[in-house]
Amino acid sequence: MAENGAKRIRLGMVGGGTGAFIGYVHRIAARIDGDYDLVAGALSSRPDVALESGRNLGFAEDRIYTSYEEMAVRESQRPDGIQAVSIVTPNHMHFGPAKAFLEAGIHVICDKPITSTLEDARALATIRPKNGAQFLLTHNYTGYPLIRQARELVKSGRLGTIRVIQAEYAQDWLTNAAEPDNKQASWRTDPARSGAGGAIGDIGTHAYNLLRFVSGLKTDSISADLQSFVAGRQLDDNVHILLRMTGGARGMLWASQVAVGNENGLGLRIYGDKAGLEWRQENPNQMWFTEFGQPRQLLTRGGSISGDVAPSMNIRIPGGHPEGYLEAFATLYSQFAEIIRGNAEPYAGLLPTMADGIEGMAFITAAVQSSKADGKWVKLSEV
Amino acid sequence: MAENGAKRIRLGMVGGGTGAFIGYVHRIAARIDGDYDLVAGALSSRPDVALESGRNLGFAEDRIYTSYEEMAVRESQRPDGIQAVSIVTPNHMHFGPAKAFLEAGIHVICDKPITSTLEDARALATIRPKNGAQFLLTHNYTGYPLIRQARELVKSGRLGTIRVIQAEYAQDWLTNAAEPDNKQASWRTDPARSGAGGAIGDIGTHAYNLLRFVSGLKTDSISADLQSFVAGRQLDDNVHILLRMTGGARGMLWASQVAVGNENGLGLRIYGDKAGLEWRQENPNQMWFTEFGQPRQLLTRGGSISGDVAPSMNIRIPGGHPEGYLEAFATLYSQFAEIIRGNAEPYAGLLPTMADGIEGMAFITAAVQSSKADGKWVKLSEV
Amino acid sequence: MAENGAKRIRLGMVGGGTGAFIGYVHRIAARIDGDYDLVAGALSSRPDVALESGRNLGFAEDRIYTSYEEMAVRESQRPDGIQAVSIVTPNHMHFGPAKAFLEAGIHVICDKPITSTLEDARALATIRPKNGAQFLLTHNYTGYPLIRQARELVKSGRLGTIRVIQAEYAQDWLTNAAEPDNKQASWRTDPARSGAGGAIGDIGTHAYNLLRFVSGLKTDSISADLQSFVAGRQLDDNVHILLRMTGGARGMLWASQVAVGNENGLGLRIYGDKAGLEWRQENPNQMWFTEFGQPRQLLTRGGSISGDVAPSMNIRIPGGHPEGYLEAFATLYSQFAEIIRGNAEPYAGLLPTMADGIEGMAFITAAVQSSKADGKWVKLSEV
Amino acid sequence: MAENGAKRIRLGMVGGGTGAFIGYVHRIAARIDGDYDLVAGALSSRPDVALESGRNLGFAEDRIYTSYEEMAVRESQRPDGIQAVSIVTPNHMHFGPAKAFLEAGIHVICDKPITSTLEDARALATIRPKNGAQFLLTHNYTGYPLIRQARELVKSGRLGTIRVIQAEYAQDWLTNAAEPDNKQASWRTDPARSGAGGAIGDIGTHAYNLLRFVSGLKTDSISADLQSFVAGRQLDDNVHILLRMTGGARGMLWASQVAVGNENGLGLRIYGDKAGLEWRQENPNQMWFTEFGQPRQLLTRGGSISGDVAPSMNIRIPGGHPEGYLEAFATLYSQFAEIIRGNAEPYAGLLPTMADGIEGMAFITAAVQSSKADGKWVKLSEV
Repeated sequence: MAENGAKRIRLGMVGGGTGAFIGYVHRIAARIDGDYDLVAGALSSRPDVALESGRNLGFAEDRIYTSYEEMAVRESQRPDGIQAVSIVTPNHMHFGPAKAFLEAGIHVICDKPITSTLEDARALATIRPKNGAQFLLTHNYTGYPLIRQARELVKSGRLGTIRVIQAEYAQDWLTNAAEPDNKQASWRTDPARSGAGGAIGDIGTHAYNLLRFVSGLKTDSISADLQSFVAGRQLDDNVHILLRMTGGARGMLWASQVAVGNENGLGLRIYGDKAGLEWRQENPNQMWFTEFGQPRQLLTRGGSISGDVAPSMNIRIPGGHPEGYLEAFATLYSQFAEIIRGNAEPYAGLLPTMADGIEGMAFITAAVQSSKADGKWVKLSEV
Repeated sequence: MAENGAKRIRLGMVGGGTGAFIGYVHRIAARIDGDYDLVAGALSSRPDVALESGRNLGFAEDRIYTSYEEMAVRESQRPDGIQAVSIVTPNHMHFGPAKAFLEAGIHVICDKPITSTLEDARALATIRPKNGAQFLLTHNYTGYPLIRQARELVKSGRLGTIRVIQAEYAQDWLTNAAEPDNKQASWRTDPARSGAGGAIGDIGTHAYNLLRFVSGLKTDSISADLQSFVAGRQLDDNVHILLRMTGGARGMLWASQVAVGNENGLGLRIYGDKAGLEWRQENPNQMWFTEFGQPRQLLTRGGSISGDVAPSMNIRIPGGHPEGYLEAFATLYSQFAEIIRGNAEPYAGLLPTMADGIEGMAFITAAVQSSKADGKWVKLSEV
Repeated sequence: MAENGAKRIRLGMVGGGTGAFIGYVHRIAARIDGDYDLVAGALSSRPDVALESGRNLGFAEDRIYTSYEEMAVRESQRPDGIQAVSIVTPNHMHFGPAKAFLEAGIHVICDKPITSTLEDARALATIRPKNGAQFLLTHNYTGYPLIRQARELVKSGRLGTIRVIQAEYAQDWLTNAAEPDNKQASWRTDPARSGAGGAIGDIGTHAYNLLRFVSGLKTDSISADLQSFVAGRQLDDNVHILLRMTGGARGMLWASQVAVGNENGLGLRIYGDKAGLEWRQENPNQMWFTEFGQPRQLLTRGGSISGDVAPSMNIRIPGGHPEGYLEAFATLYSQFAEIIRGNAEPYAGLLPTMADGIEGMAFITAAVQSSKADGKWVKLSEV
Repeated sequence: MAENGAKRIRLGMVGGGTGAFIGYVHRIAARIDGDYDLVAGALSSRPDVALESGRNLGFAEDRIYTSYEEMAVRESQRPDGIQAVSIVTPNHMHFGPAKAFLEAGIHVICDKPITSTLEDARALATIRPKNGAQFLLTHNYTGYPLIRQARELVKSGRLGTIRVIQAEYAQDWLTNAAEPDNKQASWRTDPARSGAGGAIGDIGTHAYNLLRFVSGLKTDSISADLQSFVAGRQLDDNVHILLRMTGGARGMLWASQVAVGNENGLGLRIYGDKAGLEWRQENPNQMWFTEFGQPRQLLTRGGSISGDVAPSMNIRIPGGHPEGYLEAFATLYSQFAEIIRGNAEPYAGLLPTMADGIEGMAFITAAVQSSKADGKWVKLSEV
């Protein structure tokens, strides 16, 4: 996982000017394992912000751009041009850059959701990337070691046949009408920039992606009830969804931005006929694992687990030394670097792809459709 | 709460022969605060079990019955006859005894659900109890001090307008087809004895009653998806329900008997626009209370709480000395004793009534209807 | 555990008038399992309080006493006299009644610590109880089912050789000089009524008794540092002790009444060369058990445990239905009833005895000696 | 905290060849905030390991050294020579490099404990660093945001006068005689390489440093009982210490490497006459804070706190997005970079210094002395 003698990958960034949250997160994630050098960027559409932000990051002046189109063209022509780019703009600004860089032969690391509409997501899938440029969607929570281990436990059969899934993602930061004076809140509650989903797009897709990643089950159909509790809010801020998975498992998914007392309460519980799993993101170094009729076991990141499943992989430091959100994010970056270097095999199935992005948009679309139809079950394959 | 010089109430019991779980619980609950003397019973329909069980409890021989009808007649004729009776039979055997004793002028303490059908429940409400005999339904979880305090917090406005309710009740004891050799499992999964609901009747009604008790909100309609995961099982063992409360609040309710790793995982979370509450039955002496923008507070049974709401009432011993399931159950018994003695006012609205029982049956009925209609929203007022 | 057809034992009480904490606890404990009828008492030395308290409990007028000496004489002469008595007075008032009732042939249930001085404790051991009257010391925390199970785990060798013990008992109710207006605080901080130990006597002895009960190890010597943090307080309110057990294990014990944020924080951790245990009284239905190199297991009261040790005994209701402080206390009462009835064998070693009481006083005495000698190691066998 | 346009600092490393734990941690810490470029190293005294490790990290061939002396000389002569060096060798190999680089005018980042003997530590303090070279001791746990906030709470008076401190650091990795086949275990249990302290040096000093950092109190004297539970082990693997702080506060410190079930259980509890604090490293994003008579509050990293103390500083990402061990470590690196750049003022008192290192060695020395003298109280000022 880096420190292996491989050269650092030259990285650019679109969005993420000074003060942006997720751009900063991507930069740290790119640094942690030493696989990237961030050298160019179109960090803002405002020239002054782009310039200042680029200088702060030590970019050469001629690699500070205000247009991603220009950046894609110029960087692909330079001998020392970027090999990969991180797209960290609001949702409606993912499609354009992703298309431009893939067509320029530059690998793309794109924040989620993949686009702001299902149509855009499907259109992106028709692009022909030049020179085999790869695409990574940063559903970062799949990078947590215990989430990877949970997936292994399911795959290995330790849970038996999956019956019930409970997923939730509860926050409270949009409890009040915070939008006017909060840049984050502003675009995330604006349909023009976020797309048709509010809470469901911003956090519901994370919970959905996570349950799909761990359970390995496909979704047949969903029934949704979306609410906007804050007066004047245009998008949902609380979401209740029932799930029917192919093969018979059933689930519930709750996403909320108005659940007072919750900071970033992503949680997943999965129950099979042999064992059950419970994990919460806010204390991600622990996971409950219980085999039927046996005591509850508290698995730890890097700790032991009895039986034929390996302790959690993808760890940097021993159990008891907590890794967190940034390390999980960095794992996606680091393993994508390996894929870029041609070493894809160990990471097969582990990194979120364009297909995951399209499914996420289908999930949002189906939820909105179902909620408008008073909870009618909507098949994901039919939206 | 007892020890107040009042005479003990003479109590009888129907059901609850040696080895029965819930009858034993009722007996302890009746003893804890010293308000009752258990002196008679029709503990079993099997004469030998009835006799042995009655002797073990020290009943006089002529007060050991094998027929509740006979018991109701004889006890109401004795000068020292029972004043109240506990009905702890399987669900389908609640209606008969409840009717008989109420009509004999004997107060009734009835385990939940009130009956096995909505029709029976409604019929029971048409009975004319003799001499003002009272009825208590043992939705015992409402007896927990912090649940009472949660209700006060909501009533006092500390949570603001309620928006979201998350209720759940997860167990795993029916993960396998355990019925043949398990008396409990046997009747609880038999439609003839339990009624139309499995998990929803046995535990879903508890979660539903609890959310109604704490939130004070009425239910408009529900959408349900019921499953039977174990082959051959006739009743649901996992239930997913969406709720729409009058006034706009929304909720989810999950009840399961196949969620491996859960013993008796009843939990309630309620979020208003000012504050949120979270409580779990398995550690009932603590409750999270968070006001928006403030740190999470861990309220304790008997502990302090800032502001204008009193510390939790209905406690026996100070904070840090855990009270549990039996004490919560005993609180219902003890406060019902006070009502029997004519001191009803302090307990107004606190003890579950026949109306709560009927609503519980309506909830079960609506859930089954909705699930059969592929999740159609069903109004509780229309079943 | 009761309900077995055996006759109830006629019980009296010394101390515990209306408003007293521990007397009320003893009464509930005596009722829970139905093994006792409380029929007489010298509940207070103040005649008016004794009378009112006795009437509230329904005693016959001629069995309401104001002198325990008179009570011992009269009750032992009545054909329906009490068979056992609970002594729930302040510490310095334990010796007199205990002696009187034992010599009158009445079984004694005595709150801890056994006396207020080591001399009294040793003197009590020289009494010749009439008719084989038995003595129970209510170190109630040993009644918790998981504490019993912890003891079994140690005895069975599952922990291997014990190396390290960490015991603590933290409260905060004496953070300020609360004595003047608090009856509890008043006598518990008064050397004349409590004895030479403050926190160490009131709660330190509980922690000490618990670690002895579970570990089965004897104590060689201790080194203590006692503090009184509140100005004017005559007894210790915070205690730090190092322990050397025979056989080589070492331990620490912390008791505090000034640790802000702690209600009744009794905790025990024991580590052997094969496994470790951790338990906290405030959530007594769970216990951590970890075998070296294996994941942590969360054992539950009544839940499963792998291997050759039985699930926790002495339980009333299944796992997930929390039992608490009162049930643990009641278990001592109920099992002492069995001993009184002649069925002592199943409870061998489980119920605290006069020897435990004497050792507790030796522990207090040694701690005070050591602290005065600047932490000199003091052998328990030499005080 | 980086990304501020400042140039990266050229960094070297002594120790930390491929496979070493703490060297890898230092490298990640140096990368996270982008303040350093690691360009040179004497990563191992074995030439082949040094070469391979240096190549893996991308060092130029002429900057891969096998001798720290040579490295100090050559790097200080290069125009592009390192400005700072990380020393991550076993304890007995700290003194030599620290002296060499400081005297060469190169800033030193040194792992703890500062040396293997108190004499060495004091000797190091007599060095005259060239050109004002600075020294950082990586007591990394002081970098946790909530630990910084705890310190602020104490300083601001919110806890009142500190009375009681409970510190502990429990691990289990040396439960068995693991030394022969474990490189970490090998040198950490070898007096020649670790110094006179085993557990007390390796982890006890962390707990000690942490309690000093947060409480701000100085230590008067300690009484210690050190044990080696594993046959043949030359250094302590379990440590019990009583503390007397100047001003009257008292404390206990437990460090263990044989407490089965503990991975890296560093914990700190501090109680004043107004409030108490509790924090555990394994879930470092939460901290209990309780004001006397008020409910417990669960403060979160980046979350709100009522009153006049700012929310926790030194955070990268919002509450609910857990930061961990590596971020806390990185904070030391990043803030030391600011000091190197001349911006020392905001970090006054926050970064561990040579004086902290000397005190740590005095603590170890006093503990060993006290334990050998059967727990005699030893003043830290007199060792």
